Amino acid sequence: MILAEVIGTVVSPVQVQALDGFTLLMVRPVTPDGKPTGKMRIAIDQVGAGVGDRILMIDEGNSSRQILQDTNAPIKTLIVGFVDAVEVHGELTYDHRQVHNS
Amino acid sequence: MILAEVIGTVVSPVQVQALDGFTLLMVRPVTPDGKPTGKMRIAIDQVGAGVGDRILMIDEGNSSRQILQDTNAPIKTLIVGFVDAVEVHGELTYDHRQVHNS
Amino acid sequence: MILAEVIGTVVSPVQVQALDGFTLLMVRPVTPDGKPTGKMRIAIDQVGAGVGDRILMIDEGNSSRQILQDTNAPIKTLIVGFVDAVEVHGELTYDHRQVHNS
Amino acid sequence: MILAEVIGTVVSPVQVQALDGFTLLMVRPVTPDGKPTGKMRIAIDQVGAGVGDRILMIDEGNSSRQILQDTNAPIKTLIVGFVDAVEVHGELTYDHRQVHNS
Amino acid sequence: MILAEVIGTVVSPVQVQALDGFTLLMVRPVTPDGKPTGKMRIAIDQVGAGVGDRILMIDEGNSSRQILQDTNAPIKTLIVGFVDAVEVHGELTYDHRQVHNS
Repeated sequence: MILAEVIGTVVSPVQVQALDGFTLLMVRPVTPDGKPTGKMRIAIDQVGAGVGDRILMIDEGNSSRQILQDTNAPIKTLIVGFVDAVEVHGELTYDHRQVHNS
Repeated sequence: MILAEVIGTVVSPVQVQALDGFTLLMVRPVTPDGKPTGKMRIAIDQVGAGVGDRILMIDEGNSSRQILQDTNAPIKTLIVGFVDAVEVHGELTYDHRQVHNS
Repeated sequence: MILAEVIGTVVSPVQVQALDGFTLLMVRPVTPDGKPTGKMRIAIDQVGAGVGDRILMIDEGNSSRQILQDTNAPIKTLIVGFVDAVEVHGELTYDHRQVHNS
Repeated sequence: MILAEVIGTVVSPVQVQALDGFTLLMVRPVTPDGKPTGKMRIAIDQVGAGVGDRILMIDEGNSSRQILQDTNAPIKTLIVGFVDAVEVHGELTYDHRQVHNS
Repeated sequence: MILAEVIGTVVSPVQVQALDGFTLLMVRPVTPDGKPTGKMRIAIDQVGAGVGDRILMIDEGNSSRQILQDTNAPIKTLIVGFVDAVEVHGELTYDHRQVHNS
């Protein structure tokens, strides 16, 4: 899985049935302290994420299809969870509560 | 999926039956504000895209085969939709109507 | 497989059944002498690794699913072993005992 | 697919039956105007390409296996066609006849 | 396939049955004239390669499993052959006999 941040939304009249009802979110991989790393992708959202959220994404088709329980879904990149905290070498580099309460 | 722009066409007498009737389009991944990012690829077009169009592409074989409903198609990169708008952190960075009416 | 170091942990209320009971570890590919190389990923741990450990990881879904003996597991990156030593051109560049006893 | 150029040949006594009779060609992805982009790979040739040829290659195992009609072939990178011309934003950046007749 | 050089060995008590009896070799992709290109990986050896050898590797799970004739093998990167010679644009850039007899 990859640590990423939701940075935006994409509006597109894609006519792929398996994608009906899903929002297309623009995501950017980030380091534990939030610096961009890696290229942006457009992900399907499984958890109700929004712009600014730190999330976990899976970037493999077979894994994403398992989670959606749809072996035919044409989906590679899926947001599977929010991130509450990231600790690197014992130090807290991200804490969801701090970000959202400060 | 990946945000990309159609930048050109490729003429090739490829003799692969599953590709008959498809145009080969040169596509380049772009950031939400249109800067090139990532390497160019040659995509099969599912939606009637042309040079200059901002599009969504899928870059996984199994996903592309599902969309084409051809489990044997030797296709990895497929254009699946036009992009109407991209919004990043609440700001509109791409609007199809502005680009095409200005 | 990829040589990597465990650098941290990720806390996330991911609701994916196949992941229940696993710790999410932040891993960073490293060269034989320990320099970071390649992007960080979040791995599932199969061997009881902890922060600071030099490990071997597999970064392919089908391989990881075989090892977990769960053909449906939505897992791409799996830690499969500790690294005891790395020798490059006949010279020892990493020795687990030195690191942990010095 | 990827636009590439054949830059050389590799001689190797690989003992893999599915590869018998194929030449191993060194290929390098290129931009539409012929600049190197991306890493070199060793491809199996399906069309009789030679050094200096501008070609289309497929870099996905399942696609390559479909084209070879051998579901067991251990082949990921396959040359599937010659490139006659590449046009970028309406301008011809590569023309096979010019290159070979000038 | 990828042109690479064996640069070292990795000692790890990995407990994966399909890997029993295989040496773990550290490999580094190289250009035809031997310059490092691309990230190091840990490969399973099929041909008896050793440190310093120029080799061909396959970096796709399904291909590697076919060659090992073990559809369950959790292996992505496999050394499939030695390289005798590489010729780029008609010029010999690597010759196994020169390297080993000089």
